[in-house]
Amino acid sequence: MSSSTTTLDRVLEHARQTALLGSISSLLGWDERTMMPLAEGDYRVEQMTLLSGLMHDRVTDPEYGNWLEELAAGDLMQDPHSDAATNIRELKRSRDRRVKLPKTLVEALTRASVRGQQAWEKARRENDFALFQPALATLLNLKRQEAEALGYEETPYDALLDDYEPGERTANVQRVLLGLREQLVPLVEAIAASRRRPKLELLARGYPVAAQESFGKRAAERIGFDFSRGRLDVTTHPFCSGMGPHDCRMTTRYDGHFFPTAFFGTLHEAGHGIYEQGQPPEEFGLPIGEAISLGIHESQSRMWENQVGRGEAFWRYFFPLAEEAFPDALVDVTREEFHFAINDVRPSLIRVEADEATYNLHILVRFELEQLLLADELPLDDLPAAWNQKYEQYLGITPPTNAQGVLQDVHWSFGALGYFPTYSLGNLYAAQFYEQAETDIGPLDEQFAAGEFAPLRQWLNRKIHAVGKRYTASELVEQITGQPLSHEPLVRYLRDKLSPLYEL
Amino acid sequence: MSSSTTTLDRVLEHARQTALLGSISSLLGWDERTMMPLAEGDYRVEQMTLLSGLMHDRVTDPEYGNWLEELAAGDLMQDPHSDAATNIRELKRSRDRRVKLPKTLVEALTRASVRGQQAWEKARRENDFALFQPALATLLNLKRQEAEALGYEETPYDALLDDYEPGERTANVQRVLLGLREQLVPLVEAIAASRRRPKLELLARGYPVAAQESFGKRAAERIGFDFSRGRLDVTTHPFCSGMGPHDCRMTTRYDGHFFPTAFFGTLHEAGHGIYEQGQPPEEFGLPIGEAISLGIHESQSRMWENQVGRGEAFWRYFFPLAEEAFPDALVDVTREEFHFAINDVRPSLIRVEADEATYNLHILVRFELEQLLLADELPLDDLPAAWNQKYEQYLGITPPTNAQGVLQDVHWSFGALGYFPTYSLGNLYAAQFYEQAETDIGPLDEQFAAGEFAPLRQWLNRKIHAVGKRYTASELVEQITGQPLSHEPLVRYLRDKLSPLYEL
Repeated sequence: MSSSTTTLDRVLEHARQTALLGSISSLLGWDERTMMPLAEGDYRVEQMTLLSGLMHDRVTDPEYGNWLEELAAGDLMQDPHSDAATNIRELKRSRDRRVKLPKTLVEALTRASVRGQQAWEKARRENDFALFQPALATLLNLKRQEAEALGYEETPYDALLDDYEPGERTANVQRVLLGLREQLVPLVEAIAASRRRPKLELLARGYPVAAQESFGKRAAERIGFDFSRGRLDVTTHPFCSGMGPHDCRMTTRYDGHFFPTAFFGTLHEAGHGIYEQGQPPEEFGLPIGEAISLGIHESQSRMWENQVGRGEAFWRYFFPLAEEAFPDALVDVTREEFHFAINDVRPSLIRVEADEATYNLHILVRFELEQLLLADELPLDDLPAAWNQKYEQYLGITPPTNAQGVLQDVHWSFGALGYFPTYSLGNLYAAQFYEQAETDIGPLDEQFAAGEFAPLRQWLNRKIHAVGKRYTASELVEQITGQPLSHEPLVRYLRDKLSPLYEL
Repeated sequence: MSSSTTTLDRVLEHARQTALLGSISSLLGWDERTMMPLAEGDYRVEQMTLLSGLMHDRVTDPEYGNWLEELAAGDLMQDPHSDAATNIRELKRSRDRRVKLPKTLVEALTRASVRGQQAWEKARRENDFALFQPALATLLNLKRQEAEALGYEETPYDALLDDYEPGERTANVQRVLLGLREQLVPLVEAIAASRRRPKLELLARGYPVAAQESFGKRAAERIGFDFSRGRLDVTTHPFCSGMGPHDCRMTTRYDGHFFPTAFFGTLHEAGHGIYEQGQPPEEFGLPIGEAISLGIHESQSRMWENQVGRGEAFWRYFFPLAEEAFPDALVDVTREEFHFAINDVRPSLIRVEADEATYNLHILVRFELEQLLLADELPLDDLPAAWNQKYEQYLGITPPTNAQGVLQDVHWSFGALGYFPTYSLGNLYAAQFYEQAETDIGPLDEQFAAGEFAPLRQWLNRKIHAVGKRYTASELVEQITGQPLSHEPLVRYLRDKLSPLYEL
């Protein structure tokens, strides 16, 4: 055993132990949102703070840093996509990032994000932006310090974006999103001008929660979520958390009088879960067993939710089952009417309820505003008006209240600047990957219509899930599709789907 | 601020941080048994081992030991029941115990207990004691080493008993249990000779699980379990875990065709929960905010389950509600028939299903056998036969299989020797406390019949729950009742209840 191998063993063991703490923290977070009595909230913060302190101490441990320095200068890095090089590079990247942040700043950010969320919840409930503004000002100030501490080449926003989408640049995201907007705005206008309209009321009939639950679980299982290694529970804000090598838990929320929320939410989270479950369990907690980025993660959830779950072929298999599960609601509904209703496109105020075509315009609003905020080029007093102007400009509607406008999303309240673009990146990656999947394994519709989802899942597993962090997101896109990230596949996908529905 | 106060602050902060880790470990344990996918089991062991290692390191930290030594020799100890003296004494006791155990022994015990449980599960399933015997031999050997490392004055069993019932002695437990046996055996014989017999089939009718769940929760809430600071979930092996200042979780199991299991199980666990919830939340994790012993804990669960929940007055309030909840099962049942059925006494094979009168005979069998095992005076080859002989001797029945005999309980498989007697101590304490409660606050039956349980609960809270570890169990008994622990109150209670039912 060479000395560098021995050091590598030490580094991997160190990382696995840190991951154990991280997995415990994930369980605490899941439990807080699904099971914990509300009254325990303060103590849960103490528990999670203790764990994050232990993790911080482990990651910033100088001896661990020395091991990583030694390995990063050694022979193991020759093939940059090997297991060893991937683990060393990414563990070092993660540590280098962490040691740049003074502990006082980390603590101040933790406190400001807890206070920010509390202020935001009150502000949204009372529809009063002024209640949130001071906490947001504090957070923005700290995020600017964070960006400076981390460093960047082009713009401070890069430093923050890099936390969610490693290696991605603001300018590149800007380029792709503007290209996308140019194509989307006329598409959405054409749809608005169409006389075809789906019957939306059929989605708002009585859909009993118990039937929704078993139907949703059945669909998640069918597309490949393994319930022997995971769970589905109920929360207000749905999420998916891979908290151990064989423990991936997703959540959803049910509305007995609206079908899409829980069902597409479940498909979406199952998409995240299939990514988590597709990573090699024996590498749990190491970079070669971890997701590449939030954007790539979102590509998996959006593909199963949209490309698959809102597709016509999917419902050739599932609509008869839906008719059995919801006989009253669907008694006089045809498959075509149902499929049109779940693909309704119209400008709307709330991001999480937006359709596929307008969704990315919601993201663009946030992406542009948060760059201005970070650069201190938009006074907070003017933020609500700026928000409303952008909604008028991109979507043709103006929020009647701040609760339905600038206060609708939680992200800024806990300091998550640079997070929103990963949603759009996910949509873009999903479309680009999906086109390639059909090129590689042939048309998928006949398989879906027969309830066969394994070929797509196995392709994703081979090309993405099992790859870990061996490539950055943009490297992966190029590697899989032979092309850099582009808005064109998403535009093609939307046109192909929506043109016949709206007779464009 | 005096220097000893400063040291005390350090010690308390140290203990609170350790308790944070302990509370996280409790959540992991609860989650493992209620929520976690089975496939995650091995990783959960890793997580819990990491936490127990971190706790071990904290508790054995020499600087923390020095602080405790300094405080234990100082002025704060003058009033032994003060907050400061209690915390110092008990934290030191706990640390002194821990540092006596070599880390290699602790690790060997951890491994042996995991393997022991696995071997036991297989052995019980296959009704083959030989499959468990080698693991049990290993465990017994390690427990003997543990007892020697801990030290004792009279017998090695004292060292192990002390972990569950601090300050208690084997000889004293023996004296009380033998006194109890002398009274119980003729009582059980008299009942066996009675011609009165309850109609047991009325408990084995259809009791829909959903109705059992809401009826059980209603009863738990009524006696004082606070669901805003706790939960009730489902497990195979019910338990209650106070895992945070405002987070106490209990579990039960439902049988749709047998009423008592879930209902009395829920009352039992709620009794544990009311103890946990009755401790001062701001002292969570410190000895003044912790239960005294397993025996005192069990006194609370058994009192609510038996003295209260199997009492005639309790059902004057609850039987009409039960008739509403289970109209089909109880259509032709009188309250008197129901009350007699839930107090049926007869020798049986399985401890957890035993009635109040024979229960302690099951404990005596185990208590006597485990003393012999620890002293190496009973070869393991002879254990199953020795078990069966004692059942014949004390209960007049012989287990037809080892699965229904020596293999029925999990405790020995994870090395819990010295644990069983705390169940009987709980029964004894419960009866002795309950007599005193009626002396102090008057007859409770009229209150129970009116659905009023607060006076008893408040008495328990004042006398026991809020006391923390200020007294040992035997000190507490003397302090509350003015008498040392005795079998007489329990015998009186059983005679008073059972004589009229069986017309003795």
